[in-house]
Amino acid sequence: MERPRSGCPVNLAVELLGDGWSLLVLRDVMFADRHTFGELHTGSPEGIATNMLADRLHKLTRAGLLTREPVPGHKQKVHYRLTETALDLFPVLLAMAAFSLRHLHPDPELAAFARDLQEGGPEREAEVLARIRRANGLAEPRPAGAA
Amino acid sequence: MERPRSGCPVNLAVELLGDGWSLLVLRDVMFADRHTFGELHTGSPEGIATNMLADRLHKLTRAGLLTREPVPGHKQKVHYRLTETALDLFPVLLAMAAFSLRHLHPDPELAAFARDLQEGGPEREAEVLARIRRANGLAEPRPAGAA
Repeated sequence: MERPRSGCPVNLAVELLGDGWSLLVLRDVMFADRHTFGELHTGSPEGIATNMLADRLHKLTRAGLLTREPVPGHKQKVHYRLTETALDLFPVLLAMAAFSLRHLHPDPELAAFARDLQEGGPEREAEVLARIRRANGLAEPRPAGAA
Repeated sequence: MERPRSGCPVNLAVELLGDGWSLLVLRDVMFADRHTFGELHTGSPEGIATNMLADRLHKLTRAGLLTREPVPGHKQKVHYRLTETALDLFPVLLAMAAFSLRHLHPDPELAAFARDLQEGGPEREAEVLARIRRANGLAEPRPAGAA
């Protein structure tokens, strides 16, 4: 990050993620299993433009939220995956979705997953997190108390 | 809100709040007890410009997140207060702050309050929420199960 406007924790998160697109790209990698430029572009419910997508992928990779790995055997094809750091944005995305479900009248179809997650409680959240870990090549965390 | 890019719950929250300043204005009303234009301008740790602040106050008021009331006996003086809807952004701001505390190296002094809130758990959160309610003229919520 360039020199921040202030060192307030809320501001640092806003400067990193509050640009109108970064959180949507992370949402798509996290919840829609989109990992290539093509998938993220054609699958975007908001119709993200290619230059915007390229810029945000670059920014998120540089910030340590995504990794960028060539796909073996596919010249020019690259897989974007969430890092452990990005996984810690799961509660932020959930809190934003919960606010929307309550106040912003989301599309029922696009909101079905968020609603399911909210109603399923901590167990369902753990299930979804484990699935996200597998899809992004992240190891299962050690159970608390394990050596 | 104008016609959203999509009805996805995360996107609706991003469109409402992901503009780089709205969440900081709400943070200052919520956690720093700033309620007038002057307080919000001179107290801003990020040095928000007056035209930006005026624009965001207008937007947040129109969106039902702030109320705007003349201060009796002070011509031209206006108090901005959080609505019940805005109070539901408390968990979003907390989740963002928690992410920052863990990954973005905030200024220790500016992060002290967020850290205290995080370490204090649900009891401390309830205390702070009750204080925010009083400062914004919002009634205490009825205890669950009350008639």
